[in-house]
Amino acid sequence: MFQTFETTSNPAAGAARLAMLRAELARRGLDGFLIPRADAYQGEYVAPRDERLQWLTGFTGSAGFCVVLPDVAGVFIDGRYRTQVKSQVDLARFTPVNWPETWPGDWIAGHLDRGTIGFDPWLHSEDEIARLKETAGSGITLLPVDGNPVDAIWQDQPGPPQGRAFAHPVALAGESGAAKRARLAAVLRAEGQHAAVLTLPDSLCWLLNIRGADVPRNPVLHGYGILHDDARVSLFADPAKFDAATRAHLGPEVALAPPDAFPAALDALTGPVRLDRSFAPVALRQRLEAAGIAIVWGDDPCRLPKACKTEAEIAATRGAHLRDGAAMVEFLCWLDTEAPKARLTEIDVVRALEGFRRATNALHDISFDTICGAGPHGAVIHYRVTEGTNRRLGRDELLLVDSGGQYVDGTTDITRTIALGDPGDQARMAFTRVLQGMIAISRARFPRGLAGRDLDPLARAALWLAGQDYDHGTGHGVGAFLSVHEGPQRISRLSEVPLEPGMILSNEPGYYREGQFGIRIENLIVVQAAPDLPGGDDRRQYCFETLTFVPIDRRLIDVAMLSPGERTWLNAYHAETLAKLSPRLSAGARAWLEQAAAPL
Amino acid sequence: MFQTFETTSNPAAGAARLAMLRAELARRGLDGFLIPRADAYQGEYVAPRDERLQWLTGFTGSAGFCVVLPDVAGVFIDGRYRTQVKSQVDLARFTPVNWPETWPGDWIAGHLDRGTIGFDPWLHSEDEIARLKETAGSGITLLPVDGNPVDAIWQDQPGPPQGRAFAHPVALAGESGAAKRARLAAVLRAEGQHAAVLTLPDSLCWLLNIRGADVPRNPVLHGYGILHDDARVSLFADPAKFDAATRAHLGPEVALAPPDAFPAALDALTGPVRLDRSFAPVALRQRLEAAGIAIVWGDDPCRLPKACKTEAEIAATRGAHLRDGAAMVEFLCWLDTEAPKARLTEIDVVRALEGFRRATNALHDISFDTICGAGPHGAVIHYRVTEGTNRRLGRDELLLVDSGGQYVDGTTDITRTIALGDPGDQARMAFTRVLQGMIAISRARFPRGLAGRDLDPLARAALWLAGQDYDHGTGHGVGAFLSVHEGPQRISRLSEVPLEPGMILSNEPGYYREGQFGIRIENLIVVQAAPDLPGGDDRRQYCFETLTFVPIDRRLIDVAMLSPGERTWLNAYHAETLAKLSPRLSAGARAWLEQAAAPL
Repeated sequence: MFQTFETTSNPAAGAARLAMLRAELARRGLDGFLIPRADAYQGEYVAPRDERLQWLTGFTGSAGFCVVLPDVAGVFIDGRYRTQVKSQVDLARFTPVNWPETWPGDWIAGHLDRGTIGFDPWLHSEDEIARLKETAGSGITLLPVDGNPVDAIWQDQPGPPQGRAFAHPVALAGESGAAKRARLAAVLRAEGQHAAVLTLPDSLCWLLNIRGADVPRNPVLHGYGILHDDARVSLFADPAKFDAATRAHLGPEVALAPPDAFPAALDALTGPVRLDRSFAPVALRQRLEAAGIAIVWGDDPCRLPKACKTEAEIAATRGAHLRDGAAMVEFLCWLDTEAPKARLTEIDVVRALEGFRRATNALHDISFDTICGAGPHGAVIHYRVTEGTNRRLGRDELLLVDSGGQYVDGTTDITRTIALGDPGDQARMAFTRVLQGMIAISRARFPRGLAGRDLDPLARAALWLAGQDYDHGTGHGVGAFLSVHEGPQRISRLSEVPLEPGMILSNEPGYYREGQFGIRIENLIVVQAAPDLPGGDDRRQYCFETLTFVPIDRRLIDVAMLSPGERTWLNAYHAETLAKLSPRLSAGARAWLEQAAAPL
Repeated sequence: MFQTFETTSNPAAGAARLAMLRAELARRGLDGFLIPRADAYQGEYVAPRDERLQWLTGFTGSAGFCVVLPDVAGVFIDGRYRTQVKSQVDLARFTPVNWPETWPGDWIAGHLDRGTIGFDPWLHSEDEIARLKETAGSGITLLPVDGNPVDAIWQDQPGPPQGRAFAHPVALAGESGAAKRARLAAVLRAEGQHAAVLTLPDSLCWLLNIRGADVPRNPVLHGYGILHDDARVSLFADPAKFDAATRAHLGPEVALAPPDAFPAALDALTGPVRLDRSFAPVALRQRLEAAGIAIVWGDDPCRLPKACKTEAEIAATRGAHLRDGAAMVEFLCWLDTEAPKARLTEIDVVRALEGFRRATNALHDISFDTICGAGPHGAVIHYRVTEGTNRRLGRDELLLVDSGGQYVDGTTDITRTIALGDPGDQARMAFTRVLQGMIAISRARFPRGLAGRDLDPLARAALWLAGQDYDHGTGHGVGAFLSVHEGPQRISRLSEVPLEPGMILSNEPGYYREGQFGIRIENLIVVQAAPDLPGGDDRRQYCFETLTFVPIDRRLIDVAMLSPGERTWLNAYHAETLAKLSPRLSAGARAWLEQAAAPL
């Protein structure tokens, strides 16, 4: 099993560790310190040595941070973690703070008039510190410190991850690393920049056509890179992670050096050097400034090209989705057989699903810890079942299962909401509205130049009409055997990035009724140039190709609510699912799929 | 008749006038000059004395400008006027330039390396000149000049308009002028501004609860105002326009002075003074700067409050729409009787429609020149019929009629597209898609904080699915017995202004097939707080109340394309139309409406 179910939090250790940290801060003349969840790569998953927030506070969420002051320590958590944090931290020592409703700067101003608050300049981006400075009072100094004070007191802190890097073949990538570097170097030259510093692990892996194993779930390497304007790359990562074959794959234009050579390499640059304000650690700006090198703030040059997948990446991803879809259908068939016996728990379901994916003999990892919420647990948007929360599947309720796989040919992410018995009309009507939103995105055609923001309302309009909505984006970017959450593409009210061909996105509207049920339906889709239509204008439009083929629970659809076009789309989707997956299924699953994909 | 049908353009005069202007420019040492359509109030309609662009070039469109250089004179026109301009200007002297595809600065750079181009600082906003300077070459100087050179050579130029101002009663406005001024003055004080200069006629009329008659179609006064931070207003307009009753209505806090007292009044201000970059003439900035008065760029303080109508304005507007709707139904009934006789022309239709509105005995003016396009003329988005273009209504085609009335209780704007015989399946399917978009906006509920940009895609999604779209916004703001086009509210890809209760907007998706037909369906709607729904979340949403009640041509609807919700909405709309209008109709029109509003 990749996924584990233990309760990893240890609130009891918090008091002593907090006292040690305050002593360490006092020794350094600091009044406070920031402890983010993030590591030096701003990734969603961090290595054990970077779990400083969890080690200090006990909080295990995937986002949040702690601000330690002399008399109070605030743990800032967003809406997903309001309940969880209360059971994970020692509430006598740590104060949960609702974020972003309360800004850390404002909160600090409420507890401290004057003082110096330290931060580790490797763990915060320029943007993040700038926002903090804007709201903190004028008596507060934010001071970057050398050496993280948490590391100084964390005696059994693990070492850096040592995952092996490996080649990602050009047959899957669709473009050689040399070709990628050549076109990005041309961009740097055109903009008069001599180099760009790359700090995002998926950018680096994409540019070099390699993958790594330094964190769970995302097959990335921890390291930094410098892309020079002559298309050479200096790569700073532990050479022990690279075997001879992988070194050969990097090619002669990529110079591998150990991480401790990185600062001197920065000093040796001649500017201007491009840095990304949103992701590059403050420490890089400090180092370049100290060396007198001009900085140009600009986007990580790999981020947008990486998001626009090649034909080869899309073709490979289609294959990964069919493999994953067949595993999902085996799972759904099994679930329909086992659930009525009323013995299954959420953990049983997660185990079974991972088993069906493993049975493909191609599973590299799961792409994130499966979210499996029965009944009221479905309403906890990022629910992760543990032995402590595990729930037996009930009768006449909904089961929400959000999961995915990492395969060398693609990354999947799929949510299905399944009827256990008869969950009632309220759930059925809400499910149908969520489905209408999901179909609206799936079948959308739209003018070139629109951003995710412009399409987001199409996914919500049916829910809005019923006075309902969901408090998350409609879709996130997805990598090609890379991070299951990647930027810059999104379908979200916040996203102004124009959608471009090759961008893979999730399409996952939902609806949540706290304490009762949760609904989410998710397929992955890829932006494509839309084919001309008879009777259509001469307009160059885009559309989405659906990548995910797994049936949507017909028992939860109120057919009378659907428009003719919605019904046609769903029947065509189910027919295509049946045609694509049948050859890959066991006899039992094939029979199950035939009824699950029957026309409405 | 308000509307006239003559061809007002005189291309033959252009050559001599252009030569005179170039001589005048040479006398002043200028290499070129800008002649905008706009007047000193940046209004959509201008007085005869401000028709400088038409006088010089012959071009009569509602937007555009001319750039006169030594060897070339460019007439910049947008997509609506590409054809029209060619028949209106002397093409040997004037060169049509596609705008905004070609920026005037770039165009100037292509024709003139170095030189001084004059402009009248009363006719251009700060924003407009700034944009021009950005693109013009470094050898080009843009020079504000005293005294417009066109006025200097235009011997029979009319004088300024002398329309009488009149009171707009508080019973219709819902808030006294004094109360409006008090709340805006409080805003100025809170922002540390001593005064705001008001240059938009509808802002001034709204603030003072008056109306005017200085331009056609929009009941506005030409004048400038200074709102002081103590809630007094200095009003600069021809005192002859004000009779004793209107002066009394202004009240003691409003000091009326002739326009030539305005510059000295500016000099006497103590800053900071608020000016709107988008609308205030450059001349104001010059004058204040010369007097050493600090300027703060900010929105015209009346614009947003004016857009959010009071309960009284909304109630009055509802009444205006029922009156106007009854006139429209009489018209549509007449049209259905007369059109099959195959004798009607577009001008006959416009005359008849204005007649039905006049028969209400309440018509103050039409709110714009009626757009009445039969067959292929329907595809000309801003078609204005003249004796030269007048077309006989054909068989088996569409007729598009976009019109409105100015009543003292409200401004209307409605488009209906009518079947003349059987216009065919392509037209019927496109009509149905346009209707689906119009219904999507009409019945939308949406979260507070969304802008028109966020809703615009809902109006287009059905067309997009067929590879179709329309090249105009979905909706514009509408005033309350004020301008039929008002800001800042819009439903458009370009509008980031959050929608707020009381904003009146048009909802007018369309579809146009050049040379064949045009379709547009338009109702006015007003933003309201949405009522709670059973089963809905505890979310504060907004919705639109429909103001326009006139049937939509059922003969053009492909019922099989509609969703259950769309069909329910349309039947409810028609039932409400029948209930509201029947008591106001002639017997013949009532019978006609009963079949036109029958359920689908």
